[in-house]
Amino acid sequence: MAFRPLHDRVVVRRLDAEEKTKGGIIIPDTAKEKPSEGEVVAVGPGARDENGKLIPLDVKAGDKMLFGKWSGTEVKLDGRDVLILKEADILGVIA
Amino acid sequence: MAFRPLHDRVVVRRLDAEEKTKGGIIIPDTAKEKPSEGEVVAVGPGARDENGKLIPLDVKAGDKMLFGKWSGTEVKLDGRDVLILKEADILGVIA
Amino acid sequence: MAFRPLHDRVVVRRLDAEEKTKGGIIIPDTAKEKPSEGEVVAVGPGARDENGKLIPLDVKAGDKMLFGKWSGTEVKLDGRDVLILKEADILGVIA
Amino acid sequence: MAFRPLHDRVVVRRLDAEEKTKGGIIIPDTAKEKPSEGEVVAVGPGARDENGKLIPLDVKAGDKMLFGKWSGTEVKLDGRDVLILKEADILGVIA
Amino acid sequence: MAFRPLHDRVVVRRLDAEEKTKGGIIIPDTAKEKPSEGEVVAVGPGARDENGKLIPLDVKAGDKMLFGKWSGTEVKLDGRDVLILKEADILGVIA
Amino acid sequence: MAFRPLHDRVVVRRLDAEEKTKGGIIIPDTAKEKPSEGEVVAVGPGARDENGKLIPLDVKAGDKMLFGKWSGTEVKLDGRDVLILKEADILGVIA
Amino acid sequence: MAFRPLHDRVVVRRLDAEEKTKGGIIIPDTAKEKPSEGEVVAVGPGARDENGKLIPLDVKAGDKMLFGKWSGTEVKLDGRDVLILKEADILGVIA
Repeated sequence: MAFRPLHDRVVVRRLDAEEKTKGGIIIPDTAKEKPSEGEVVAVGPGARDENGKLIPLDVKAGDKMLFGKWSGTEVKLDGRDVLILKEADILGVIA
Repeated sequence: MAFRPLHDRVVVRRLDAEEKTKGGIIIPDTAKEKPSEGEVVAVGPGARDENGKLIPLDVKAGDKMLFGKWSGTEVKLDGRDVLILKEADILGVIA
Repeated sequence: MAFRPLHDRVVVRRLDAEEKTKGGIIIPDTAKEKPSEGEVVAVGPGARDENGKLIPLDVKAGDKMLFGKWSGTEVKLDGRDVLILKEADILGVIA
Repeated sequence: MAFRPLHDRVVVRRLDAEEKTKGGIIIPDTAKEKPSEGEVVAVGPGARDENGKLIPLDVKAGDKMLFGKWSGTEVKLDGRDVLILKEADILGVIA
Repeated sequence: MAFRPLHDRVVVRRLDAEEKTKGGIIIPDTAKEKPSEGEVVAVGPGARDENGKLIPLDVKAGDKMLFGKWSGTEVKLDGRDVLILKEADILGVIA
Repeated sequence: MAFRPLHDRVVVRRLDAEEKTKGGIIIPDTAKEKPSEGEVVAVGPGARDENGKLIPLDVKAGDKMLFGKWSGTEVKLDGRDVLILKEADILGVIA
Repeated sequence: MAFRPLHDRVVVRRLDAEEKTKGGIIIPDTAKEKPSEGEVVAVGPGARDENGKLIPLDVKAGDKMLFGKWSGTEVKLDGRDVLILKEADILGVIA
């Protein structure tokens, strides 16, 4: 079963400890606004600019990324916990 | 009797437990902002961009979708409880 | 005596119980934001987009519609109680 | 002595009881946001759209109209009490 | 010594009682938002619209005008008390 | 060592009492929002309009000007106390 | 491992005391809004203007700059503490 996010929304799966990028990004416990590490599951078609033209998103399914910890809405999709975020909640992509 | 929503408004019927997509999306009880599952009954013609051009909506009658639980206005239409939402309250479509 | 609403304003008459659309739209008493049923009496020429072009309204005199209960300004016009709303306060048209 | 309002401002004289339109618009005492009846004395050249083009006002000197009761700034012009409003404070014109 | 206001700013001198326009504009003591009478001393080149084009101001040095009493910043320029306002604080010009 | 302000930012040096323009602008002690006198040290390339075009600033290095007293961020640059402001904090230029 | 910031975000490393520009910028302890000195590690592709066109950032990797002390989100990237900022949080570049 597929879920198609609308506009600039993105479906994201939180990464478990063992899946996290090794030796890579560590979120310090003392960070005042702690981000989370996740993987993009599905993306919307993009938001529209002021002339109604679609601006595709800068992330795609499979991208690993950081996002603001308190962002989005939690749902369970095909038995898997995911979050529905807006692209603006994503800080960047782990390449 | 028909009801024609204006602009980017959408008429939505909440899905009963037995109608919900099987094995599909589950809204955890612990979710801080619980979304609801529904079916689109009717859609407006779309909002206008800054040049006054109509941007048609990305959902159509019959679409099953998730929407923010506290969104919209409740009315009874032809004996059926429905909600009038704005498209921006819809998180995505269940395909 | 005529009253000509400016811009995107609409003059609306609340519908009495006996005038309401039969078997049609019912506003449940438990609705958190109860809409009202009314009939459009007069409409303004429309709002202007960012280039100053007039966007005519999507409702016309005679349309029956739903509007947010607490919207608008009450006046008595030719002995009849009416409301002056903005088109954005109208949820949709009953066809 | 003349007073030339700037931009989308309008000079308005409140109508006395005997000048009000007969059998016409009555503002009920119970109205939550009571409008007032007035006559346009002078109008500004209009506001500018996003391209800097002037959009002339939709009212002219001599128009009788309704406006929000708490709108505007009171001044005395040539011994006459008037209000300086913005056109957006005008609900509509009594024809 | 000259002072050149930037953008849509205007330098204004408050008018003394004896300089005020005779039999003209009187600000009632009971007005809730009392405007003041002043004379324009210098004007900026204008604000820019969304395309970066300069929109010259609608007032010029020498204009007598009304402005919101609490607007602007007081400075002493060549021994004379003046105010630096934005054009939007000017209600209109006394012709 | 040079410091290049970004966008519409301006580096400003507060003027000492003896450097201030003689017989010129005096900031009264009673002014509710006291401006300060300063000299522009460096300017950014300008802000961008809605089409992404650069709008150069209206001040240049060496200009003496007035700015809102509480504006900006204090830093010490090459042993000299300076402020980093936005151009919009500048009231006007002393010619 | 690389981290690619999205949009107008910038990855920044705080400069240690010994790395700071000598005899250059000193942030006084008494400054009300203390900026910090840092080095740009990676930049996003830029924000989009209203027509959806990318506006590249005005800073690049390696630039030393000042930024608002309380800006951004702290993460540890390849064992190094960095901040993810928006370009608008950068006051200027130390040349």
